[in-house]
Amino acid sequence: MVKAVIIAGGRGERFWPKSRIKTPKQLLPIASKRSMLSETVKRISPLVKPEDILIIARKGLGARIKKELPKVPIKNIISEPFGRDTAAAVGLGAILAEKKDPDSVMIILPADHVIGEPKKFLKTLRVAIKAARNTDNLVTMGIKPTRPDTGYGYIEIGSPVRRFAGSPVYWVKRFAEKPDKKKALKFIRSGRYLWNSGMFIWRASVILGAIKKHMPKLYRGLLEIQRALGTKKEKSVVEKVYRKLDKISIDYGIMEKAKNTLVVKADYLWDDVGNWQALERISVKDKKGNITKGEVSSLDTRDSIILCDKGMVGTIGLKDLIVISTEDAILICPKDRAQEVKELVHKLGKNPKLKKYI
Amino acid sequence: MVKAVIIAGGRGERFWPKSRIKTPKQLLPIASKRSMLSETVKRISPLVKPEDILIIARKGLGARIKKELPKVPIKNIISEPFGRDTAAAVGLGAILAEKKDPDSVMIILPADHVIGEPKKFLKTLRVAIKAARNTDNLVTMGIKPTRPDTGYGYIEIGSPVRRFAGSPVYWVKRFAEKPDKKKALKFIRSGRYLWNSGMFIWRASVILGAIKKHMPKLYRGLLEIQRALGTKKEKSVVEKVYRKLDKISIDYGIMEKAKNTLVVKADYLWDDVGNWQALERISVKDKKGNITKGEVSSLDTRDSIILCDKGMVGTIGLKDLIVISTEDAILICPKDRAQEVKELVHKLGKNPKLKKYI
Repeated sequence: MVKAVIIAGGRGERFWPKSRIKTPKQLLPIASKRSMLSETVKRISPLVKPEDILIIARKGLGARIKKELPKVPIKNIISEPFGRDTAAAVGLGAILAEKKDPDSVMIILPADHVIGEPKKFLKTLRVAIKAARNTDNLVTMGIKPTRPDTGYGYIEIGSPVRRFAGSPVYWVKRFAEKPDKKKALKFIRSGRYLWNSGMFIWRASVILGAIKKHMPKLYRGLLEIQRALGTKKEKSVVEKVYRKLDKISIDYGIMEKAKNTLVVKADYLWDDVGNWQALERISVKDKKGNITKGEVSSLDTRDSIILCDKGMVGTIGLKDLIVISTEDAILICPKDRAQEVKELVHKLGKNPKLKKYI
Repeated sequence: MVKAVIIAGGRGERFWPKSRIKTPKQLLPIASKRSMLSETVKRISPLVKPEDILIIARKGLGARIKKELPKVPIKNIISEPFGRDTAAAVGLGAILAEKKDPDSVMIILPADHVIGEPKKFLKTLRVAIKAARNTDNLVTMGIKPTRPDTGYGYIEIGSPVRRFAGSPVYWVKRFAEKPDKKKALKFIRSGRYLWNSGMFIWRASVILGAIKKHMPKLYRGLLEIQRALGTKKEKSVVEKVYRKLDKISIDYGIMEKAKNTLVVKADYLWDDVGNWQALERISVKDKKGNITKGEVSSLDTRDSIILCDKGMVGTIGLKDLIVISTEDAILICPKDRAQEVKELVHKLGKNPKLKKYI
């Protein structure tokens, strides 16, 4: 049995003002006409039935997600009472999957990535599933890097293990955090590094074993939740446990420590769409290098991203600027500072008059 | 008798997206909480009664202007069927003023300038009125320049004539068109140049004599209109005459040619508020050099003009940028290209889909 666990807990603050608390990035049609979450579900649908898809999301988004994914049963949309990063979400997914079948293979997928070439994606995924089913290892898909990106984590490839479904699978030598430019260049040139895609494939029992070993506190919490599953106390126990959990990512909590991780090389187009600048990589530009949407009129404006939901935007003499105009809020920011949108959102959150815009 | 003729025919395209065809610059509260037109009327009210104020405006603005100026009789709001620049507007004002009293002194005032120090303004105006009443000359107020502005026309001061109301009045040696930077610097340093304020004072008979001499075609048209004044044909004759008139400014058509022009030195704060950049001179800046209005939140943003009518604007890393967000349209433009807003408006006018925004 193959289960998909889609991690949809993010806020996507860097996509403000399109992303808001009530409409985070994964619920937006950032890269296509469908929401990123629904693209994610569509992408794995040839391999996983809707009833085997779990969505782990923030409290309060259930109805929006159900509307987005009408085929996924409502009971499969799991609300986390608090955001506790990906380790907790994966752990929660694992005990839910284990309950049905301890040997079920889980595919962990972020809800807000772009993947081109879906057939290649499925082919690679099948290799990873075979490896996860037939060994007691954690498995990940590592993306062949196309540029020395400093915004991604990297995976150093170790020795080959064997072929699964006709493709070679390797030991992971190590997970490397986001490098500086110099290091990133070295990684790329060596040919021994892949991008950490954040997509993982493993049996429920295997990841729970890893959590027991590397994150004992989380493990004890998960056991507590496990005992309450299906009882009247389930909700309150989940809340009690989550309240005490630390915010730790699965990469930091498990992947950087575990010694039994395999990697499948993936060479499909992949992007984590980390901020507005990512649109440069996944959108079509006009002759002047601009990406525009909606009613935009420009004089001498180049290499800019101008999205207009309502009314019009007129520009003169802009270069490398991001302009996002929504119903009630407008962002204006140079491309190379798109990371800082998150800080702007935090600033708004602290302002009683402007809090309503986050 | 003193009559004020307020020239309110401009489109103020450089103030898009605040200024629109139906709400030109003079009807906007650009510099204060009142419209520029109503500030203009308020400014001369100690000298001119509402029934002696004529407003020459574009067709279709009558109701808006009446609302703005409840005390000015509706019959004093004169609609031009077509925009034919200031010479035609002044001529039309002159025959209307002459009809009541050929010797009435007309004060010609643009509707969209900012004047600080209203008492100084009135004092200077009284000098100009005396000069106009007691000589057969055209009179203008020349502003003592405070910087080598290349956006203004200049007046070279000639020899002194005599004092009126205790102040010296000079012959105008010449009207100089907008200079380049080098020339502007020379003008300023010489001490012999004033800014051409576009404000003129003269008797109706004197300006009509100048029009007869320097713009005979306009003069013939005005005579035709004069004969139709008060008859059933008035409107159709005005339209017929206007249709054939050339677009010529009073500066180009008369002032640059006339030899009998006097100038009164004015040293009140004056600004023609030519484009958004003018806000720098007439508004209060915050500690970071920004001029903001409405809900604006910024990170590392300096020396910018950010006006937000609705919702909010968030900015990161901007410098010297103009952002004007209105109900339905947003302008983003570097300060030093604020002149080009006019071109953007022309571009919109040619686009069937975007024409509605001008």
